[in-house]
Amino acid sequence: MPPPELVDLRRLLAEISDLDRARAVLEWDERTMMPPGGTAARAQQIGTLERLKHDRLRSPEIGRLVDVLASYGEDIPFDSDEASVIRVARRDHQKAARIPTKLKEEMALAAVAGEHAWREARERSDFAHFLPHLERNLELKRYYVECFDAADPYDPLLDDFEPGMHTADMAILLNELKEALLPLVAAVREHAEAVDDSVLIGVFPIERQRRVVADLLRSLPIPPDECRIDEAAHPFVTSFSPHDVRLTTRYDERDLAGSILSTLHECGHGFYENGIDSTLEQTPVCRATSYGMHESQSRMWENQVGRSVPFWRNFHKRLEAAFPAQFKGAGAERLHRAFNVVRPSLIRVDADELTYDLHIYLRFELEREMVGGRLPASELPEAWNTRMHEYLGVEVTDDAEGVLQDVHWSEGAFGYFPTYSLGNVIAGQLWDAVNAALPDLSEEIERGNYLPLREWLREHVHRYGRSLTASEIVERTTGGPIAAGPYLRYLREKYGELYGLPAS
Amino acid sequence: MPPPELVDLRRLLAEISDLDRARAVLEWDERTMMPPGGTAARAQQIGTLERLKHDRLRSPEIGRLVDVLASYGEDIPFDSDEASVIRVARRDHQKAARIPTKLKEEMALAAVAGEHAWREARERSDFAHFLPHLERNLELKRYYVECFDAADPYDPLLDDFEPGMHTADMAILLNELKEALLPLVAAVREHAEAVDDSVLIGVFPIERQRRVVADLLRSLPIPPDECRIDEAAHPFVTSFSPHDVRLTTRYDERDLAGSILSTLHECGHGFYENGIDSTLEQTPVCRATSYGMHESQSRMWENQVGRSVPFWRNFHKRLEAAFPAQFKGAGAERLHRAFNVVRPSLIRVDADELTYDLHIYLRFELEREMVGGRLPASELPEAWNTRMHEYLGVEVTDDAEGVLQDVHWSEGAFGYFPTYSLGNVIAGQLWDAVNAALPDLSEEIERGNYLPLREWLREHVHRYGRSLTASEIVERTTGGPIAAGPYLRYLREKYGELYGLPAS
Repeated sequence: MPPPELVDLRRLLAEISDLDRARAVLEWDERTMMPPGGTAARAQQIGTLERLKHDRLRSPEIGRLVDVLASYGEDIPFDSDEASVIRVARRDHQKAARIPTKLKEEMALAAVAGEHAWREARERSDFAHFLPHLERNLELKRYYVECFDAADPYDPLLDDFEPGMHTADMAILLNELKEALLPLVAAVREHAEAVDDSVLIGVFPIERQRRVVADLLRSLPIPPDECRIDEAAHPFVTSFSPHDVRLTTRYDERDLAGSILSTLHECGHGFYENGIDSTLEQTPVCRATSYGMHESQSRMWENQVGRSVPFWRNFHKRLEAAFPAQFKGAGAERLHRAFNVVRPSLIRVDADELTYDLHIYLRFELEREMVGGRLPASELPEAWNTRMHEYLGVEVTDDAEGVLQDVHWSEGAFGYFPTYSLGNVIAGQLWDAVNAALPDLSEEIERGNYLPLREWLREHVHRYGRSLTASEIVERTTGGPIAAGPYLRYLREKYGELYGLPAS
Repeated sequence: MPPPELVDLRRLLAEISDLDRARAVLEWDERTMMPPGGTAARAQQIGTLERLKHDRLRSPEIGRLVDVLASYGEDIPFDSDEASVIRVARRDHQKAARIPTKLKEEMALAAVAGEHAWREARERSDFAHFLPHLERNLELKRYYVECFDAADPYDPLLDDFEPGMHTADMAILLNELKEALLPLVAAVREHAEAVDDSVLIGVFPIERQRRVVADLLRSLPIPPDECRIDEAAHPFVTSFSPHDVRLTTRYDERDLAGSILSTLHECGHGFYENGIDSTLEQTPVCRATSYGMHESQSRMWENQVGRSVPFWRNFHKRLEAAFPAQFKGAGAERLHRAFNVVRPSLIRVDADELTYDLHIYLRFELEREMVGGRLPASELPEAWNTRMHEYLGVEVTDDAEGVLQDVHWSEGAFGYFPTYSLGNVIAGQLWDAVNAALPDLSEEIERGNYLPLREWLREHVHRYGRSLTASEIVERTTGGPIAAGPYLRYLREKYGELYGLPAS
């Protein structure tokens, strides 16, 4: 017999969850549907929902209930719905209780103003226009950090995106990636002529790209009654229930590869949202467990699937049929190679699989230094450009294609970037695990049957929501902690073969 | 210097307004975009937003503020923003304070269940399946009515849609319509051969209808940055700010007239939402003043404009160009006449301009009798069918095309129907007023210039929001009370001429 306090807690949590889902609907609408005239009112509406949610989450009433229920929650199975709800609600409450509503509001206002200024600044490649907003965001984040007793000022920020993970551990992991990738990218660059992507250069009418993407989506195990797909300038996925998932994608007539890979990427996110257990609805557990785990799903569908030989053995026919003039007789191998060209470049979102984590490392370093007060925001462009040269060997001549390219810092989202690389790392580990569990996986993908992969991920990752943390999921599926080894081995093997590198 | 309580009041009202707008976004999404899987979660989310809003509106804190501010509000100009905010907030608070949150919740649950059962019942033409839900809605409405000291139990229900209007006055008005329309429809039926709509019988591919509607919308003074149009099974309009208005329309390949008229109808609603003064945003005044006034706007654009000679002198060319096989050489007069055929029929939403109010009268009578306990819900189908014969001379053989045709009662929306006829009445009065003010209006419409009409309506109706009631707006624009005379004169002249009736 569950204690009566659990009924009260779930009622309050349901209200908070509904407010949060409503906010998500408003944001989805803003980014896919809303006419520009709605901007100002929408910011107010979202701000109000956020404030009501935060006030409720930090209320003494919830504090009392989670404290009373804590020992009950420890006596029942760890990953039961009830124990998970109590544990996660307690964590969320304790974190929210430290943050004054006023600070939360100030951060939200600064984020809106910052993003607005960033758009203008990027348009004109004018960092000075953005600088005061960046400084304001950093100032507010320092107040935010002071609400916690943190060993590293970056810890509370990282924790917002990757609950429970410490900066020191993330730094070790990302450093290991960097140290391995720098020589690997250098070796690939020495054999650059081995891979040719000229077949992808061309103009691909958007109407026809839409049909290719629709075709791809139909072949993926997405329940049409529970998902819809729209277009957005910056693709994203959100959900308002596990049974109401919204995907977005984008088209560029000069970038067919981008629309295919971004669709697979967003589907990976969508499968996660769609796969969380319905019994968790209206609780704080009914969400992806971390940004890194979310990204592991999208990156796996984009890279381990979408950039793989088996996928292209199946999908090349569709591309050839859709764009016969461009691709007639191109064949699976040629397309697979073209989709895997490595070429260090300026823009993170267009980066290939191998150089991607170097873009992340640079951002992780810079934001830690800014948050820690070791790098003044005014010196950011110079630091950016120097390190782009150092890590990627490219020269930044224009801040719009340099330090101003990403939205994250304009919104105060410090601590987000490293979860992209963490996602790659986890994807490498889960990919090993799923291939060990499903020895025929390659053949199934080659037959265009993606269901076994999706079902394995649902069973071992998605359904838990936040019942398990990212490291608990990795521990259960691989028997060990989060580690870069499998991902690096995957990259070395794949690109060693593609570029004909000498075995190391 | 406004009193400090006004600042507090506006802060609380802004929060309530944001919750209400958020709910509207969720409902719009549900009816235009949401995959079916989202239904259950969406009902919860909307329920939570409604409950939070109701709790806030009836809070003692708002009660104290509106009471303290009442005399200040009476000392400043009546239709100033401040006086209006205080007056309208006081009215809303006093009404909400009478209704227990629990009853509000029960009504919301019964509405969701009722609508669901109604859809099934209509599908199978099975009134018995719907009956218990209808009875439950009526029972809850009786509890609702008991929260007020009402002379007539229908008064508080009508007041939800038409603030300040009494049942007795509505009954006089609608009875006057019925008494005038019965002989007029009979006379028209005797001359039925005078108007021929065979030109509209055909199959009109939906893709081409969409282009015609897009063309029509471009010719209307709708700011594209502040509106969007989507498709919905039951067209409606909503807004999330005066600068973010959402129109919907529908297409049926056998009903071209329906898509043109419904687009004009919804535009009429949209102009209203779009025309409310921005200074009223985030207050309860920033809404249409009543359902009747809202409907006056939609019916005016649908009927006084869309079914008029000047409109067709302009628009016939576009229809002829879009569907040359069907309309080549049809001409303005033939199309105008076809769009004005009078033919008593079973379905309200498909009714012509002349018989429409008889459909309403029947519903108004029946719902008053049910609410007053004089007609048991179980006897509703028989009463419906008898009066359909009496008022419209048509035989109902199928409840799906009879008593089950409308969604309103399934959601507990008793008191809504009469506002449709009230809208016709007010449209008749405003149409006289705008034509007196703008003697060239017909010529402008014939030239396809709809801006003067829109601007006059914005100036005299839209911009006020709820600062003025429907009768105050009618009083200011026409110098007298709401009255059926102008509308009936318009109908008699128009249909007398179309059908060649002897002057009465």
